[in-house]
Amino acid sequence: MQLGLSVSDSDVSSFTPLVVLELADDTKAEAITWLLNRIRDKQKNGGAELLVDQLLFPAQDGQKSNPNVFVVGSTLQRLLKGAEDVGLFKEFQDGIMRGFTYANRESFKDFYGDGEGFLSDAECQYIIKHELDTLRAKNEEHVPGYPKVKLYPGKSVVRRLQSKGVLVQYFPLHNKEDLKRLSFSWYKKIKLSFQPLDDIRHYFGEGLALYFGFLEYFTFALVPMALIGIPYYLFDWEDYDKYVLFAVFNLVWSTVFLEVWKRCSATFAYGWGTLSRKKAFEEPRAGFHGALGFNPITGREEPVYPSSKRQLRIYLVSVPFVLLCLYLSFYVMMVYFDMENWAISVYNENPNFGTGILLFVPSIIYAVVIEIMNLLYRYAAEFLTNWENHRLESSFQNHLVLKVLVFNFVNCFASLFYIAFVMQDMVLLRQSLATLLITSQILNQVMEAFLPYWLQRRRNKKVHKRMRRVMGDKELPLLEQVQLETEMNTYLGTFDDYLEQFLLFGYVSLFSCVYPLAAVLVVLNNITEVYSDAFKMCHVFKRPFSEPAANIGVWQLAFETMSIIAVVTNCALIGLSSQVKAYFPESETQMILIVVAIEHVLLAFKFILAFVIPDVPKDIQVKLAKLEFDSLEALKKRVKSQLILKLQYVGIL
Amino acid sequence: MQLGLSVSDSDVSSFTPLVVLELADDTKAEAITWLLNRIRDKQKNGGAELLVDQLLFPAQDGQKSNPNVFVVGSTLQRLLKGAEDVGLFKEFQDGIMRGFTYANRESFKDFYGDGEGFLSDAECQYIIKHELDTLRAKNEEHVPGYPKVKLYPGKSVVRRLQSKGVLVQYFPLHNKEDLKRLSFSWYKKIKLSFQPLDDIRHYFGEGLALYFGFLEYFTFALVPMALIGIPYYLFDWEDYDKYVLFAVFNLVWSTVFLEVWKRCSATFAYGWGTLSRKKAFEEPRAGFHGALGFNPITGREEPVYPSSKRQLRIYLVSVPFVLLCLYLSFYVMMVYFDMENWAISVYNENPNFGTGILLFVPSIIYAVVIEIMNLLYRYAAEFLTNWENHRLESSFQNHLVLKVLVFNFVNCFASLFYIAFVMQDMVLLRQSLATLLITSQILNQVMEAFLPYWLQRRRNKKVHKRMRRVMGDKELPLLEQVQLETEMNTYLGTFDDYLEQFLLFGYVSLFSCVYPLAAVLVVLNNITEVYSDAFKMCHVFKRPFSEPAANIGVWQLAFETMSIIAVVTNCALIGLSSQVKAYFPESETQMILIVVAIEHVLLAFKFILAFVIPDVPKDIQVKLAKLEFDSLEALKKRVKSQLILKLQYVGIL
Repeated sequence: MQLGLSVSDSDVSSFTPLVVLELADDTKAEAITWLLNRIRDKQKNGGAELLVDQLLFPAQDGQKSNPNVFVVGSTLQRLLKGAEDVGLFKEFQDGIMRGFTYANRESFKDFYGDGEGFLSDAECQYIIKHELDTLRAKNEEHVPGYPKVKLYPGKSVVRRLQSKGVLVQYFPLHNKEDLKRLSFSWYKKIKLSFQPLDDIRHYFGEGLALYFGFLEYFTFALVPMALIGIPYYLFDWEDYDKYVLFAVFNLVWSTVFLEVWKRCSATFAYGWGTLSRKKAFEEPRAGFHGALGFNPITGREEPVYPSSKRQLRIYLVSVPFVLLCLYLSFYVMMVYFDMENWAISVYNENPNFGTGILLFVPSIIYAVVIEIMNLLYRYAAEFLTNWENHRLESSFQNHLVLKVLVFNFVNCFASLFYIAFVMQDMVLLRQSLATLLITSQILNQVMEAFLPYWLQRRRNKKVHKRMRRVMGDKELPLLEQVQLETEMNTYLGTFDDYLEQFLLFGYVSLFSCVYPLAAVLVVLNNITEVYSDAFKMCHVFKRPFSEPAANIGVWQLAFETMSIIAVVTNCALIGLSSQVKAYFPESETQMILIVVAIEHVLLAFKFILAFVIPDVPKDIQVKLAKLEFDSLEALKKRVKSQLILKLQYVGIL
Repeated sequence: MQLGLSVSDSDVSSFTPLVVLELADDTKAEAITWLLNRIRDKQKNGGAELLVDQLLFPAQDGQKSNPNVFVVGSTLQRLLKGAEDVGLFKEFQDGIMRGFTYANRESFKDFYGDGEGFLSDAECQYIIKHELDTLRAKNEEHVPGYPKVKLYPGKSVVRRLQSKGVLVQYFPLHNKEDLKRLSFSWYKKIKLSFQPLDDIRHYFGEGLALYFGFLEYFTFALVPMALIGIPYYLFDWEDYDKYVLFAVFNLVWSTVFLEVWKRCSATFAYGWGTLSRKKAFEEPRAGFHGALGFNPITGREEPVYPSSKRQLRIYLVSVPFVLLCLYLSFYVMMVYFDMENWAISVYNENPNFGTGILLFVPSIIYAVVIEIMNLLYRYAAEFLTNWENHRLESSFQNHLVLKVLVFNFVNCFASLFYIAFVMQDMVLLRQSLATLLITSQILNQVMEAFLPYWLQRRRNKKVHKRMRRVMGDKELPLLEQVQLETEMNTYLGTFDDYLEQFLLFGYVSLFSCVYPLAAVLVVLNNITEVYSDAFKMCHVFKRPFSEPAANIGVWQLAFETMSIIAVVTNCALIGLSSQVKAYFPESETQMILIVVAIEHVLLAFKFILAFVIPDVPKDIQVKLAKLEFDSLEALKKRVKSQLILKLQYVGIL
């Protein structure tokens, strides 16, 4: 609530601007007036009761800037009431997280005076987003001035404007002072310390803080593995047989790692108030379309799309498309092996430094091609999932994640599996693993942070120069900030970041016993990843809206599946090792049976372990139970006191 | 609510008796007076506000019958309010199951007039049980007349009296008319029809109805398998190689069977109102003891037992004991194999009819010994789990189930696994399977229903004669009914019934491809099981209190685990078959690898199937979501209307 700027510097009434709304520059005046009125209107009239003002940019020479940019803010009281609407959980006097209510506001722990500073910036912006999103059409049949942009009672106005391109974007503003403080404690000082997760959550919200928490946890969890990997690298480099022990460690580690993370994540989420927070009823996605019908749950009028049609699209188009892509990926892999063979034959004919380098070229090309295919596929998957027309954002996300995961998994690991189990060539496996891992890490860091940063610096300079030219010496920091941030890239969520960690986890857990340095490389990558991700969040992208998250969701399942596949792969690798084979010189059959038996025992052990370790630490379980108990008791009391109140009321009448 | 009897026939005030309380016959008068007063006292004074009266049995020649037997009933209004307290869900006007509230009672579907017949008998008795159980001590430090039976504020009076032996038992009364109607439609007419599950639920409650639903579902699910098994038996008896197809069918069947059951069970539970019902806060078990402390959740004074002590008892005593028992079970198994060998050698020396029969004797003896060991172990497990001093009934049950399951599994199936995979003798496997299955079925039916029935008939006749002798021609049906039911056996819950089905499921899914008739035998057994279980519920046991249940709980997990083990076993059996071996004459290794690969694919398929099939049918999902949505909306409205009410109230003042 302490933004360094206020709208006052640009001729409009004074409030702290939190969110920017950008409408298309040819939006009709009547639509704008109508929208602003709806946003400003009292809640009892169905408005959002927020503060909103237009930002007027000075006319610029030749270049016309969009006049329809608005900033939205709110009074403190409205925000506190909104906090109750969205169901925020805050720490109560007794140390337990409880649902915030405006009536009991003064009993919450950090509530002083009128509540200034009680809500974090990210929370305020989230509340404003929620209020804007739930601004519903009343009796309007269409947006004024746009007879084709139909509305029906209860339709979210903002989503409809967004899906029709009238509302170009809306995003929260950065807070320069807070950002400076955060970036200093986060990545600007180089020292060994944990990330300031609470501050990150305060500024960016729970979803992102949880990602950074996971990144940190994963990196720390890899350290012991990296430490064990180094002596393997130094002393036993060519002795692949020693990796049995390493593989067993690997298995136990990957199970315990994921189980303990669940507990950590529950602890974080409890402290941030998202663990016991109830999910609000989900609105349809902005892009969802269908014939107007009735929602069987709410009874409200809204577009309905038959689920059978969606199933047909999924099974007749999406699934065959994914299979085709997988086939393509296999085909590319076979081309890679041909290239590999060709390079080896060239080297064998004429072994010198040049042809020695040539040996690595196919792997590098393959790694680059894989990244490009992943990228292209990603767009196709998004298009297809969009076309499947899912009603809810969550089900859209799940279908997208599933499509992308399957393809990325096959694309990245197919060649390694082929080398390990079909060609059974451990030297090549190690070499390919190293090349793939290093190339994809370098590509990732460049594509993800440095390239966008460089592009944006160029843009910023241009904007800065233009603004200076237009306004001379006048100080208009808010205008400039909005101008700059409007043109920044939009952060598309934690999807790509988790995906990257998922693939790294695969490299470490599936084959690292063959290439013990993998863990070391991943640790090094993740340390720079923290810095580059932190940097990109603070300086490359628009500030994202906070996403309340209680866990890492579908990614937990993805990591667990990967760790099961890892058990199978590692057992198979053990079975292939010549050391193990040497123990059973006479009967290969017996060896295989024993390896299979061990695999089954390990899998069973894994499931039992996952079952026995409680997902939520004991102390938080007690706090949750207390909350549940109190709410049951309160319900009983409320019914009674309500009755007494009513009786008194009737008596007085 | 339509009991055929009323207390009026025995000199006491007139109400419908629902529950019988039996106190020890030497209970002190002051304790009785105190207890009755607490039960009759108004709720606002902390009483249960129920109706209670003493049953006076006429003096009998010489034999003194217990004078401290009481019947408890209630007014209709009190029961309806109690229904709200326990959180019953009932069908609303709009066809959706909603939490019953006394204020909205007239909006519920089957509510006519004053609500007569709205609650089922089982529900009324459950409500009375709940009200008795939550009758809490106020400031009494001990039960009057018993300085040693300590109380503290908030302690459940009934549980304390029960744990100290002052309260001998309390149980719901049978309703003779309803029982006659139920037993007629349930098992007295022999025709092919479904069981009257709704009536069973109406009379015995959801837990038991769900058991019978599962029994029926399981039996029907076995029919296709039995049908496929018969031609196998008739045509391919000695050709064990044909069972590959059967095994594959087996696997798919066991997965689909369990997934579909979840959906059935959700449908049942929704219709019975238990699916969305919230669990009340669990009281400590009657037998739980410890130093007086504070419950961290409720903040109330109650006994506290350190969880570390319990863990020590579990890991240092219970686990070693279970392991010892498992060892013993293995030892007995080895003795059985010795006996088996001896019988075969006798037969080979002198093959005639007598020694031919001798061949079956070891198996039969072993089957009987297994049953006895299971029984003895059951008592030991109950004792140990009790001694572990679990605070909650649910965690007591889970630990007990786990102990009993592991032992029963090993005890029943170890010899079969040994024969199949160590001895690899398929003829012996079939023979043992058949003997074990048939013997244990016969033993079970006798021990479970007919023996108790026979014992009880003898007792009933005696009671009947005695009553006639004492009272001459006076008709005192209630007194006689209470006298008879007091002496009936107590039904200890569905544990043993589910356990039996679990073991049968094991026989069918683990090895039935070797003995295709297993499914036929289990179907036949379950058809008689329905009748004998129905009979024992109606005539052998005291009526049990209804147990609200939304699913079959830990048994679902147990059955799923069994079906996973079945995949492994069946794949291994396929690998052992000579037909499969014949396909790979050169390389046994390759054959094993292929079988292992198939096993992994099947297991993966199983998990994906379990993941893809939704646990709750679509239409019920919609209804549940609607309930959730309505309650969110109602909450918003209530907060507003409460505010308006308060404002008006303040305004008037």
